[in-house]
Amino acid sequence: MTPKALSVRAVRSVTLRGPLLTTRPTAYFISNVHKQQTRSFIPAMVARVASTNLLRYFGLGAVTGTAGVGGYMLFSDPDVEELTLDDIKVPELALHPSKGGMKDLPIVTNNIDDTSDEIDKPRLVIIGGGWGAVSTLKQLNEGQYHITLISPTNYFLFTPLLPSATVGTLDLRSLCEPIRKILKRVAGHYLEATATDIDFDRKLVEVRTKGTDPTDPSSAKSFYVPYDKLVIAVGSTSQTHGVDGLEHTYQLKTILDARAMKRKVLDNFEKASLPTTSPEERKQLLSFVVCGGGPTGVEYAAELFDMISEDLGNVFPKVLRNEVSVTIIQSRDHILNTFEAGISKYVEKRFSREHVNVVTNSRVQHIEPTKVIYDQKRVVVDDNGEKHEITETKEVEFGLCLWSTGIAPTTFSQLVRSKIPEQNNRRALVTDERLRLKGISDSSVYALGDCATIDNPHLVEHIMDLFQEADKDKDGTLTWNEFRDCVSNMVSRYPITENHMTKLKDLFDKYDIDRSGTLDMDEMRQMLSDIDKKMTSLPATAQVADQQGKYLGKKLKSLAMTARPPYTALDDPPLGPERSPVRATLAIAQAHESQYPPFKYTHLGSLAYVGNTAVGEFSGGFKMMGGLWALYLWRSIFLSEQVSLRTRSLIMLDWTKKWLFGRDVSIL
Amino acid sequence: MTPKALSVRAVRSVTLRGPLLTTRPTAYFISNVHKQQTRSFIPAMVARVASTNLLRYFGLGAVTGTAGVGGYMLFSDPDVEELTLDDIKVPELALHPSKGGMKDLPIVTNNIDDTSDEIDKPRLVIIGGGWGAVSTLKQLNEGQYHITLISPTNYFLFTPLLPSATVGTLDLRSLCEPIRKILKRVAGHYLEATATDIDFDRKLVEVRTKGTDPTDPSSAKSFYVPYDKLVIAVGSTSQTHGVDGLEHTYQLKTILDARAMKRKVLDNFEKASLPTTSPEERKQLLSFVVCGGGPTGVEYAAELFDMISEDLGNVFPKVLRNEVSVTIIQSRDHILNTFEAGISKYVEKRFSREHVNVVTNSRVQHIEPTKVIYDQKRVVVDDNGEKHEITETKEVEFGLCLWSTGIAPTTFSQLVRSKIPEQNNRRALVTDERLRLKGISDSSVYALGDCATIDNPHLVEHIMDLFQEADKDKDGTLTWNEFRDCVSNMVSRYPITENHMTKLKDLFDKYDIDRSGTLDMDEMRQMLSDIDKKMTSLPATAQVADQQGKYLGKKLKSLAMTARPPYTALDDPPLGPERSPVRATLAIAQAHESQYPPFKYTHLGSLAYVGNTAVGEFSGGFKMMGGLWALYLWRSIFLSEQVSLRTRSLIMLDWTKKWLFGRDVSIL
Repeated sequence: MTPKALSVRAVRSVTLRGPLLTTRPTAYFISNVHKQQTRSFIPAMVARVASTNLLRYFGLGAVTGTAGVGGYMLFSDPDVEELTLDDIKVPELALHPSKGGMKDLPIVTNNIDDTSDEIDKPRLVIIGGGWGAVSTLKQLNEGQYHITLISPTNYFLFTPLLPSATVGTLDLRSLCEPIRKILKRVAGHYLEATATDIDFDRKLVEVRTKGTDPTDPSSAKSFYVPYDKLVIAVGSTSQTHGVDGLEHTYQLKTILDARAMKRKVLDNFEKASLPTTSPEERKQLLSFVVCGGGPTGVEYAAELFDMISEDLGNVFPKVLRNEVSVTIIQSRDHILNTFEAGISKYVEKRFSREHVNVVTNSRVQHIEPTKVIYDQKRVVVDDNGEKHEITETKEVEFGLCLWSTGIAPTTFSQLVRSKIPEQNNRRALVTDERLRLKGISDSSVYALGDCATIDNPHLVEHIMDLFQEADKDKDGTLTWNEFRDCVSNMVSRYPITENHMTKLKDLFDKYDIDRSGTLDMDEMRQMLSDIDKKMTSLPATAQVADQQGKYLGKKLKSLAMTARPPYTALDDPPLGPERSPVRATLAIAQAHESQYPPFKYTHLGSLAYVGNTAVGEFSGGFKMMGGLWALYLWRSIFLSEQVSLRTRSLIMLDWTKKWLFGRDVSIL
Repeated sequence: MTPKALSVRAVRSVTLRGPLLTTRPTAYFISNVHKQQTRSFIPAMVARVASTNLLRYFGLGAVTGTAGVGGYMLFSDPDVEELTLDDIKVPELALHPSKGGMKDLPIVTNNIDDTSDEIDKPRLVIIGGGWGAVSTLKQLNEGQYHITLISPTNYFLFTPLLPSATVGTLDLRSLCEPIRKILKRVAGHYLEATATDIDFDRKLVEVRTKGTDPTDPSSAKSFYVPYDKLVIAVGSTSQTHGVDGLEHTYQLKTILDARAMKRKVLDNFEKASLPTTSPEERKQLLSFVVCGGGPTGVEYAAELFDMISEDLGNVFPKVLRNEVSVTIIQSRDHILNTFEAGISKYVEKRFSREHVNVVTNSRVQHIEPTKVIYDQKRVVVDDNGEKHEITETKEVEFGLCLWSTGIAPTTFSQLVRSKIPEQNNRRALVTDERLRLKGISDSSVYALGDCATIDNPHLVEHIMDLFQEADKDKDGTLTWNEFRDCVSNMVSRYPITENHMTKLKDLFDKYDIDRSGTLDMDEMRQMLSDIDKKMTSLPATAQVADQQGKYLGKKLKSLAMTARPPYTALDDPPLGPERSPVRATLAIAQAHESQYPPFKYTHLGSLAYVGNTAVGEFSGGFKMMGGLWALYLWRSIFLSEQVSLRTRSLIMLDWTKKWLFGRDVSIL
């Protein structure tokens, strides 16, 4: 190391001093100072206890508490840690970032928890803290990337169980894992802020903090975070369908939504119990309406019904049970219409037994403070025996209305799309099969999860390549064997086509229009064009985002290992904008990436909780509809999908608590 | 029963009809309809599972989950209940209450969960849902009183552990027990409303509901609740000491306070982690100030310190630890000044080691948005060696400030006091030794807990009685034996004097001024007058409220048993205002009450958590200061004091969770 480099380091590291808080001074104090005192105290205490009123304290507690507390004492010893008095070094650049970029904002090259000024690793920036982001993170190793995650919420939320938490079956906190804990393993950085823009040319993400005073927008600050690799995983927002009055409804996206909904349900029950509430108001307060018959809406309706019949019925006046109504308004002709028809029908039959009203073929027109107005289509037979479809406008009063009719892109996604001409899908950011954002040439930006969609491969455009590679004998036609090679080649290149490439012999025969026993170029073009039309995008589910995150995390790990920077101990990597070893690394990585297999989605199945049991369909055609074991399968599947041992244990505890004590019916 | 009475009943009961929600239709459905289906499904499923992707679901879950889920399935069978299709009768008067009283408001004589129109039991109304109210309730039996509890919050909060919940050591929900669950045992009624006034003449409590629209005060409704016996247990509010700027501070009274404080602490850490936060802002954000050195303030400071050093230090940038400061501002010269001096000093020494700053002899002058300004008294020695007390004005910046400087009466308490001329204590409602509100002649109103204080017995006023009863030989003086009888008589009548009646021989000698070996009337008067001056009121603690509640509950139960109404099966108790059997009952009860022993407080001890250990002093002079076992004693004491098995188990689970996974550091 040259003397110059040394002095640079010395100047660039400053030390913050102050009263150093130690990790476990308390435990240290106990174990060292008071051990003796405690020993001599105990016999004195035992002697005295009989003559004091202390025993009264134990009372009932002695019965239930002693065993628990006794066992507890054995294992709950606060652990003792050594004091560390090392000064903590903070990079000078983290304290006083330089300014730049289009808007001359601070460029945060270093964070206050970086241990040195030099960032000799590629900068990986992840926007979002949901399924896609966390699954990516969990695949990475420490030391491969300088990772920064930007999200306005500092916890990951296990969204599929949110309806359960909304009625108090699960504790909301059991569904959350702090992002900082997940990042700790890879020594990543977290910024509690919202991404507002991306400068793709300078590779800068513009972010905005919440501000010290939430009521004063000017207290929020903007800055840039530079990236070498960027992952966009910002999720989605609710689809409004242009309906007015959504401010009177609840949406089920966040912890705060879930808590507000629980409070509202219990509050309505309390209000309905008051003697000054009129019978009409009582009916309105206890009418729960769900707009949208997808899994979220159906699960919420089922959980709500369970809570009302199992828990609220016990503590609230019995008469209220007669006044409760739960209504699901669905635009299609069946609820759970992404599931197989048998499952939809099973759930509808179940609901009708339980007096959960399912209103189908109905579109919400607008929403008033306590009323949903909707148009219902119905087929009537006139006097001449002819069928007509008529539309009737109906209304239903509500005390609480959940709006769960699908997803729409966030403002940020829309902004990103508007900056890239190649992005032509209004519903999501388009990526290639390797999750690289379309329109960004250097593979520096990825998008996944709800905010992204994988582009249709447009097979017809690739017909020349596909055909010529397969046509080994160059006779201008594909024999059955050549056709099979062609298909397997195509599927490995575009895994999304796999579902359409079943029953190959039938396909071959179908498109062999001239019955020649071979397929010529025109016949193949026809087939590919038909497949192109059938291609649909992946559903916006946690399962897809999770698999995409795993894929991307593994790929990023593999790229980092392939293109490990050629540093030696003597090399002193330059600081600042050049960072040439990092650039070299990235060039190698980019070359390698095209060899890395594309993303392949494996549909494991769909599940929905429908009130003390579950329905589901799995790959291989296996279905489950109801039954006690379906409930347990549902529970074990979600347990196995947890991101941490902590949340897994907490959720098991919650189910046990619910079984022992029922749901929590305090307004919290 | 006369035909007339029969017809009255028929008219007065109406039946609400509607879709009757059944208790457990789901479980019923599973067990009856799908048992067969399930049985045939299972072998099919087992066969298929190997060939499907289902196994992937289990993955990691198989390792941790199988045992738990397996065991879970054994005991978590949803219980099956029979369908009940009985129509539920609601008293007509509950649906359409008659109007009356001073303000012509609805008088709620019946609730919608009453099973009949006639209320043939004395009406017991409890205002409040804290320690006093719940301890009273827990002593009562079903069927003795028609009980109505009025409180704006529908859960009981275990306040002594609130500081623990505020930092995430305990789950807030573990400290809550729904009032409706507690009331269920005695078939009581709960009204989510606030008592706003009492009409003592007509025996009506005026209450106000929250209103359907919280932003619109006109949606709130007022009505009267009639009582025969009334318990006022409304607690207290925070003492402001006339300090301006309290809106910038937090108070620790409710669940919402605790949650807001936790969010603020974590939010400040997130803001301090941002690179755009200046070092000065960082210091301010991480400065936590507690005004008030009582148990609440000290426990919060200790818990906060624990959370920062044990949990936040692990996930937030290390450098933040150097910037954290915790300050306690105390007006007296020691913190925990209700404890014995040795304990105060022990805690101060402990805090000084942990860099928790204790600022004593300081009064807060006013509070600015991020700054506490206070006056500190200090003794200085001038050049001539003379001591002067000087007052310096100082300030400390904060990111969060807790205001916990004692209690003050609520607006409702003040209103009640203003209506009764005999109530002359500005700090609390005054009761006699039997907890009966002073100034209410017919023993119909009780007050207890933080809102009440037991009147000083004014022994001097009773000297004639006491003296003459004891002076058996009527010689105008008390011998040593007569004096002892006199004291024991006095203590049983006024238990509050007991603490002052120790070392009787010394007392006797001290007041035998003429050394005659006997006490004459003047000497006794001097003694009683001195004792009167020494008499202090009971502290405003959960312990006092709890014991008062137990006393009152037992007394009310006993009164009900003594004066059971003389009904026979043939008697049809009249409805409406006369309700003479109830009146007769109450007259008997009132006569009996004067024979019932007065309330006697037994101080069990005081406890405070001071950071991974606890301090305490108990009756009998036993003290504990620090040590690991003190922590466990502290824990077991609080476990034994829980109001339900549910909260007791949940709190044990929470302590285990904390030990396993640390505190919860998501912003929730």
